[in-house]
Amino acid sequence: MVIELSPKPQETMAWEVKARLKREDRDNAVQAWGLNTAGLVQAGRTNVKYLPLESELLTDEQINITETIPSLILRNIAKRTWTAEQVLRAFIARTVIAHELVNPLAEVLFESGLTRARELDEILRATGRVVGPLHGLPISLKDVLHMTGVESTLGYVAWIGQLQPKNDSLVDFLSEAGAVFYCKTNVPQTLMSGECVNFIFGRTSTPWNTSLSAGGSSGGEGALVSLGGSPLGVGTDIAGSIRTPANFNGIYGLCPTTGRLPLHRADRTAGDSLIKGVAGPMSRTLDGLELYTKTILSMEPWMKDHQILRIPWSDSLYHEGLGSKHKLCFGFMAHDNVVLPNPPILRCMQDVRHALVKAGHQVIDIRPFDGVEFLKLALRILHATGGNEVREIIASSGEPLIKEFALPSSDKALTVSEYKECSKELDIIRQKYLDLVLDTARLTKSGKPIDAIILPSGGTVAPPHGTMEYLTYEAISNVLDWTCATIPVGFVNPRLDRKPTQFTPLSDYDLRNFETCENSYALSGHINANDGLDSPERYQDAPVCLQLMGLRHSEEKVLGLLRTIDRALGRTDDYKA
Amino acid sequence: MVIELSPKPQETMAWEVKARLKREDRDNAVQAWGLNTAGLVQAGRTNVKYLPLESELLTDEQINITETIPSLILRNIAKRTWTAEQVLRAFIARTVIAHELVNPLAEVLFESGLTRARELDEILRATGRVVGPLHGLPISLKDVLHMTGVESTLGYVAWIGQLQPKNDSLVDFLSEAGAVFYCKTNVPQTLMSGECVNFIFGRTSTPWNTSLSAGGSSGGEGALVSLGGSPLGVGTDIAGSIRTPANFNGIYGLCPTTGRLPLHRADRTAGDSLIKGVAGPMSRTLDGLELYTKTILSMEPWMKDHQILRIPWSDSLYHEGLGSKHKLCFGFMAHDNVVLPNPPILRCMQDVRHALVKAGHQVIDIRPFDGVEFLKLALRILHATGGNEVREIIASSGEPLIKEFALPSSDKALTVSEYKECSKELDIIRQKYLDLVLDTARLTKSGKPIDAIILPSGGTVAPPHGTMEYLTYEAISNVLDWTCATIPVGFVNPRLDRKPTQFTPLSDYDLRNFETCENSYALSGHINANDGLDSPERYQDAPVCLQLMGLRHSEEKVLGLLRTIDRALGRTDDYKA
Repeated sequence: MVIELSPKPQETMAWEVKARLKREDRDNAVQAWGLNTAGLVQAGRTNVKYLPLESELLTDEQINITETIPSLILRNIAKRTWTAEQVLRAFIARTVIAHELVNPLAEVLFESGLTRARELDEILRATGRVVGPLHGLPISLKDVLHMTGVESTLGYVAWIGQLQPKNDSLVDFLSEAGAVFYCKTNVPQTLMSGECVNFIFGRTSTPWNTSLSAGGSSGGEGALVSLGGSPLGVGTDIAGSIRTPANFNGIYGLCPTTGRLPLHRADRTAGDSLIKGVAGPMSRTLDGLELYTKTILSMEPWMKDHQILRIPWSDSLYHEGLGSKHKLCFGFMAHDNVVLPNPPILRCMQDVRHALVKAGHQVIDIRPFDGVEFLKLALRILHATGGNEVREIIASSGEPLIKEFALPSSDKALTVSEYKECSKELDIIRQKYLDLVLDTARLTKSGKPIDAIILPSGGTVAPPHGTMEYLTYEAISNVLDWTCATIPVGFVNPRLDRKPTQFTPLSDYDLRNFETCENSYALSGHINANDGLDSPERYQDAPVCLQLMGLRHSEEKVLGLLRTIDRALGRTDDYKA
Repeated sequence: MVIELSPKPQETMAWEVKARLKREDRDNAVQAWGLNTAGLVQAGRTNVKYLPLESELLTDEQINITETIPSLILRNIAKRTWTAEQVLRAFIARTVIAHELVNPLAEVLFESGLTRARELDEILRATGRVVGPLHGLPISLKDVLHMTGVESTLGYVAWIGQLQPKNDSLVDFLSEAGAVFYCKTNVPQTLMSGECVNFIFGRTSTPWNTSLSAGGSSGGEGALVSLGGSPLGVGTDIAGSIRTPANFNGIYGLCPTTGRLPLHRADRTAGDSLIKGVAGPMSRTLDGLELYTKTILSMEPWMKDHQILRIPWSDSLYHEGLGSKHKLCFGFMAHDNVVLPNPPILRCMQDVRHALVKAGHQVIDIRPFDGVEFLKLALRILHATGGNEVREIIASSGEPLIKEFALPSSDKALTVSEYKECSKELDIIRQKYLDLVLDTARLTKSGKPIDAIILPSGGTVAPPHGTMEYLTYEAISNVLDWTCATIPVGFVNPRLDRKPTQFTPLSDYDLRNFETCENSYALSGHINANDGLDSPERYQDAPVCLQLMGLRHSEEKVLGLLRTIDRALGRTDDYKA
């Protein structure tokens, strides 16, 4: 027997034990629900999207509830067709199944959720009135949202056991409106990764193909919502963290602009960044996004949270997006001059384009926004501290860094003067692209600038676990601080989406990346990689989403425009992804 | 004869010559107007406020024009009672006199102004229509506003001769609305001083008493407007730079909140700061402030300048401020727990309080905002770079730093991590004081929070040239990013405003400052200084102003509230300070 003199191995042991115990706590709380999910996943089956419906673990009523759009759930609770408890029990049951399938959960709050639901039922029974516009709606929260007395580990072992003293204002607003919280969802350690994995809770997959990534950082949220475990989830986004998982899980997501809707205060970048993290809704339904946005803005959040701007919901802007008065014009940006999206994305973009034109709208090609310009500036700003705060958190528990995040060198930290130089560049780039949009007035039938821009959701659909992805497409709107949403529009089709036989780099940057970063280019369908990663079969059933980007503070208009796209695609207003 | 081997003295010579030539250019351009101002200032006379009217250098018509409120000037131009050229000539003549009296000018643009005025007259003649809501109104600009082909030296010798390539968007908006520019006004070197002085253009005084400071940094603007040389001026403010000179010159000034109205891009702090510089109107009339704010917001500036938020002018918020529907409640903050304002300020504050109560409004004392808390955070943020950018500019010409600005030590520069810590503190302080305001709902008759806060404009009225003043009162609203306006309410009255015979420090900080910074405390009327600075006679005729502070993005409401105060003081709506 070797006696350990160095404390190091013990420390290493300590974080692992701590992480395991926390994970076991979570899983025990899920199992305590009493639903027998053993044997649910058959070997070899990768697409589990519809397993909750096929599993026979849900009653018909539970299926009915969890397949109902949020605003109709609210109506059914308000007129007492369903109780809040009954609704919550249905979503919890479906969440338990989802957890077995793709591992989306971080914190399990079923019991406190049930208490709250019963309270709401009692109030409605006693007063005949709902407490607010979200009375009884179960809402899932990304782990970054602070709740009183609950941990927000963010996948850091060091933060296990740290109970938050205070709700984030966003949590207060939703709660005041009548929402019921019952779980928080998984994120990548550091939050700065497109792969949702950490040493406490493990890895989350997209239900469409469990060999593929659920995306990040709101990956748990994306996977849970996609499986119907939640009618409405809240994610956060500083460089695609709502839209990447919305994309990989095939759901709707809205990344609002800074200060329009309540933020979160738990992020590692908390403290002002030139590019700010925002919180926004994720849902299988457009209804969920609209409900979230309208409800919060109706509460005059600027009168309670100093970070919120006094910009009320505008019906007229929403109707502009619906094209109620005149036909719309969409700008179409097929790529960013750096990475050509892979074949299924290009195909689906064309499908949407044709559908919009068929519906009478104009679609014009616009000059691609320069991906390199955005990527360089975003990385400098987001890595301004040289990653020191992450290094400290990681060091304090002894856990390693996940391999899916490359920590910047600490000597790359900027001075305040350099940081201010970044802000000048930001000022220039934001004005430049606003001018570019305004300039399209020359090209539209209406003589007004384009109403929004359609662009890829990324260079790739959901990639195999642990492979890099190219994030520039998502970072564009964060750098510009423009409203940006994700909308599911199709699926990979191996028959239609063969990879091109030739690779012609779009730029020098593309070529350099081709050499140094083969995987991500393999994923974008450009090259003949030998590992098989470029085979469209590899992406079997992966959803394809697009991004729709409007100007700053145009949340209403973007929501209206999403509705316009849905309708052009022949979807009814209660369509569920 | 000594031969100079070192280039140093030549360099020293060089900046002095450069500065003198620039100053002579300016003064020649003023003199070229042909108004004989020689002998205008009589020895021993310090109050020159009404000299333009007494001088007999202005025609009755010119006096009539320059004593008319801006919106009536516009109406008279629109209905062709006056031409734009005629109006401009009147203001130029008065500006020439003002310049002789208090030295407010930096750039003289009389000729280009006249060309523009004639163009506007021609358009109106030809089309019968005005080009915009400011058609023909002369507007003076603080030197920081960039105009194509014009210098913005900001009092730096190093920047002499650097013609700006591009208008600031604010200049474009005003120009598009029909404004006529004819001069830019003096600022302190570095902009970071309450004393308006630099080595190019010299020192600016308040016309009320030329031995007293015009304030800074928009000191030239304040003095020119006060003397009637401009019906509407534009200043900028990051720690009181609109409100200090408005205070010292006895005029109205509005410091808007970040992103509400177009900013400027010339400031040394250009590049994002956690506390941002804003641009706002200064005028002898409330009408001028309203006109500026409404006009720009009516132009949807957010559709052209990415920095502007989509928050249109709200009539209903303005009417709230007028108290049209219900009586108002003002919070009253007599001091900041650090420096008790000097006696005339306290007296005038009480006068306003009584007038408001007499008009039927409620006024309640509120807990003083903690001056130390604001001062410390503001200084850390505003000095985050350690003053390196100022040091570089100063070094490049060889000129010295003005003694009225204390450059922070360069080794005090913050890291980005420290800077982000400041932002967390900022988040906390902003929420804390918003909560404090919301909490007043317990105390008001309406059960709603107070409508705004009345607070001192500073610890002192305009101080003797070159003496320090205490800036915390002005910095509060910048730190909070709340709307804040200055309103003239009275004058020093040596008979009423004797200094107190005892000094009881308000705080430890007050005591420390008492020892290290005697002048500023002498000015605040606390102590028996031996230099006579504390004598109220020293401040003969100095105006007294108050600040009115509303929440973020409540410009309309604050303007309405200023009107309410004016009316309570018995002023008509065309009152001129």
